[in-house]
Amino acid sequence: MESKQFKEIKGGVVAPKGFQCNGIACGVKVPDSKRLDLGLIVSDVPAVAAATFTSNKFKAAPVRVSKAHLASNGSIRAIVTNSGNANACTGPRGINDAKRMTAVTGEALDVKPNHVLVCSTGIIGVPMPMDRIEAKIPKLVSGLQSTSGDNFAKSIMTSDTLMKSFAIEVPLGTKTVRIGASAKGAGMIRPNMATMLCFITTDAAIGKTELRMMTQSAVEQSFNRISIDGDTSTNDTVMVLANGTAGNRKIQGGSPSARKFRQALDYVMLHMAKLLVSDGERVTKFVEIQVRGAASFTDAKKVAEAVANSMLVKCSWNGSDPNWGRVMHAIGYSRARVREELVDIYFDGLCAAKSGLVTETPIEKLKAAVAKREFTVTIDLNLGEAEHSVFTSDLSQEYVDYNRAEYAVRVS
Amino acid sequence: MESKQFKEIKGGVVAPKGFQCNGIACGVKVPDSKRLDLGLIVSDVPAVAAATFTSNKFKAAPVRVSKAHLASNGSIRAIVTNSGNANACTGPRGINDAKRMTAVTGEALDVKPNHVLVCSTGIIGVPMPMDRIEAKIPKLVSGLQSTSGDNFAKSIMTSDTLMKSFAIEVPLGTKTVRIGASAKGAGMIRPNMATMLCFITTDAAIGKTELRMMTQSAVEQSFNRISIDGDTSTNDTVMVLANGTAGNRKIQGGSPSARKFRQALDYVMLHMAKLLVSDGERVTKFVEIQVRGAASFTDAKKVAEAVANSMLVKCSWNGSDPNWGRVMHAIGYSRARVREELVDIYFDGLCAAKSGLVTETPIEKLKAAVAKREFTVTIDLNLGEAEHSVFTSDLSQEYVDYNRAEYAVRVS
Repeated sequence: MESKQFKEIKGGVVAPKGFQCNGIACGVKVPDSKRLDLGLIVSDVPAVAAATFTSNKFKAAPVRVSKAHLASNGSIRAIVTNSGNANACTGPRGINDAKRMTAVTGEALDVKPNHVLVCSTGIIGVPMPMDRIEAKIPKLVSGLQSTSGDNFAKSIMTSDTLMKSFAIEVPLGTKTVRIGASAKGAGMIRPNMATMLCFITTDAAIGKTELRMMTQSAVEQSFNRISIDGDTSTNDTVMVLANGTAGNRKIQGGSPSARKFRQALDYVMLHMAKLLVSDGERVTKFVEIQVRGAASFTDAKKVAEAVANSMLVKCSWNGSDPNWGRVMHAIGYSRARVREELVDIYFDGLCAAKSGLVTETPIEKLKAAVAKREFTVTIDLNLGEAEHSVFTSDLSQEYVDYNRAEYAVRVS
Repeated sequence: MESKQFKEIKGGVVAPKGFQCNGIACGVKVPDSKRLDLGLIVSDVPAVAAATFTSNKFKAAPVRVSKAHLASNGSIRAIVTNSGNANACTGPRGINDAKRMTAVTGEALDVKPNHVLVCSTGIIGVPMPMDRIEAKIPKLVSGLQSTSGDNFAKSIMTSDTLMKSFAIEVPLGTKTVRIGASAKGAGMIRPNMATMLCFITTDAAIGKTELRMMTQSAVEQSFNRISIDGDTSTNDTVMVLANGTAGNRKIQGGSPSARKFRQALDYVMLHMAKLLVSDGERVTKFVEIQVRGAASFTDAKKVAEAVANSMLVKCSWNGSDPNWGRVMHAIGYSRARVREELVDIYFDGLCAAKSGLVTETPIEKLKAAVAKREFTVTIDLNLGEAEHSVFTSDLSQEYVDYNRAEYAVRVS
C-alpha cells in the first residue's frame, strides 16, 4: 500500500534479537477449543517500554493495570495477552484478574509483576475465566520460542480474518536494528469501535523519553488516522518494547539515526494501521480520503472524518457507486468552513464534481475507479492550504450480518 | 406510539378547511412511469406561513428560493413539490429551475411566484428535467381536490415504504380547528442523511410570529430528536400553513388556546417524526434512547446521540441482541461526564447493567425485550438531574443492500 522504504523480514514480533513469544489455546474464546487465545511476548533482557492507550472514559482493567506498571518503572520484560474476553466493565474483580495475570506470568518467568504488561480483547462485561487462563500460563511460558511470531499474532485475533504480523530491518550507522509488529483490529465502520491492539518489538538501543516521543507521533499519523472521531474502544492499546540487543549506539534525539529510526517506526505503524482497515469486518474496499485546500487543519480533519464516517457514502462504495452527491452531503454537515461552489471531488484522480457541480466524466469511468479494491477520494475545498487524510473502508451487508450475531453467538 | 391526546381524522393535508392538494406522475423519478412525483398544496385564501430548513451548509436551490419567498412576504398560497430529483448541487441553473417551478405554478393558480413555496427531494447533482415538470403543472392544478391527502403524500415519497399522512381535530374554545400533515423521510441510520420533508396545514387563525415560534419549538422536540448530530441533508424542510378558515378567535400568545394549539402542533410533529423513524430504510426496530441522571442537558444529549449513532449498537438491535457492553462503549466515548461505576442500563425497564456491571437478569428476558418491534433503552448516569431522549432504529443488511444500489439504479 505504501512504497517499500524498508526491507521486510520474517519473524514478526520475534524478528528483533532477544525476543521470544508464544500463543496457545486456553479456552477463553471457546472452552476446550483449539482456537489460540492466550499470548505472550518476552524480552530476554529488561526493555525500555512506551505505550498509548484508549481515550475512552471506560478503560478496561488491563489498560489501567498496564498504565500503572509503566508508571511504576520504565523497564518491562513481558506482555501477556488474551482474546475472547476484554475484561472491561468488570469492576474491582476485573482489576484483580488483570493484576493476577501479570503476577502469575511474572512468577513463571521469575520477574516482578510490575515488569509485566497485560492486554485483553473480546466481549465486554463478562468476568474473566481466570482458572482456564492461570492453568495454561506455565504451558505458555514453556513454549516460548524466537523463530516465528505467527502463534502470538493468531492468539490476539478476534473478528480479524487475517493474522497481522510484520517486521523490517533498519540499517543504523554500522549496525542493523529490527522492528517487529503484531496487531488485531476489525470493526471497521468506525475502526476504534472494535478493540485495536498493536505490539511492537525492536532490538534498537534507545532511551525511554525518545521512544515515548516517537511512539506518540507514530500513533498520531497511523492508528489515529483510521480511528475516527476518537470513538476508541475500552481496550485500545499500542505497546512498544526496545531491548537494545542490536548493539547499536544508543539513539540520541535529533541525530540522523533518530530520524531514521523514527521513519522506520512510522512506517511500521502506518503499515499495521492499513492492514487493520483492509481486514475490517467484512470490508471489501480500502479507501483513502484526502482533503486539501482547507482553511485550517481542523477543517480538513472535520471534512475527512465526516466523509469517512458517512454510512451512505460507505454503502455507495460497497456498491461501487461513485456517488459524489453523498460526499457533498457529508462535507456540508461537517461543520468545516466550506463553499459549495468551490468544492472539487475526485475518485482516484477522476474529477466527479468541479466547483460543486457534476462534470462530464463518464459515469462508467467513475464506476470503474470505485470498483477497485483500493482507491482514493480527493476533496479540494479550494479555500486554503491545509490538508489531512484518513483511511477508511466500505460498509457491507456482511458487516451487519456479522455484528448482529456476534454477541448472541458468544453467550449461547 | 404516543398516547392519543387528540382525535385523529381523515384527509391528511386537506383535512383542515380551505385547502386543496394533488399529486401526479410527471416522470422525474422514472420517465413515462406511473410513479407520483409532482405534488401541490393550495390554500384557498392567503395563509400565514412558518418553516424550518436544513442546517447543512450546502442548501438545495428550492430551500434558498422558499426562504427568500418567506422573507419577502408572510402570506403564502401554495407549495409545489417534486420527488426524484433534489435540485441540490445544481448551481445557478438549479436556482432558476426552482424559481421557475414557483412561477409556472403561480401562473396556473393566478398568484404571485413569491406566494408559492417549493420543495424537492431525490438525487443530488443532476439538473432538473424542467420540461417534464412544467408540462404537467396545468394538470397538477386542474386536479386539485379537498377530499384526500393521499396522492400528495405519495408524490413526495422516495425510499419511504409507507405513505405518511395524518390529521387531527382540536377543540379551541367554541370552535374546532384541524391540523393536517404529510411527510417523507427514510435513511434512518442517521435520519437526516436522507431528506426529511414535512408539510403541515391548519385552518386555525393565528399570527405569523406566534406560528413561527410554535413551529420552531415543535420541530425541536420532534424532528430534531430523530435527526442526530445535525447531519441534515441538503433539502430538509418543515413547512406550516395556517389559513384561519376555521373561524376561531385569532390565537393570542400565552392564552389557553395558544397552549392547546401548541400541544396539538407538538403532537402532530412528534407523531410524524416517529413515523419517519419506523419507516426508515429497511428498519425493523423503533428504539427510544432515554438518558437520565446526567450532569447537564448537553451531557445527556451527547450520550443519547452517541448510543443512537453507534453502528455496533444498531447492529446488535437488528439481531435482537441485548448487548449492553456496546452501549457502554458508546457512553464511554460520548465525551459527556460519565463514571463507569455509576452507569445503569435498562432494556424496556429490565436492568442489564447496574453500577457499570452485568446483572443477574436472565439473558433470555433481555433478548425478549430487544426482540420487540419497539423498545426503550434507558441509561441512568446517576450524576445529576438532566435528561434527554432521542428516537432511533436498528441497522439492517437490507439497509446496506438498498443504499449500495440506490444511485446506480437511478442513473442507469
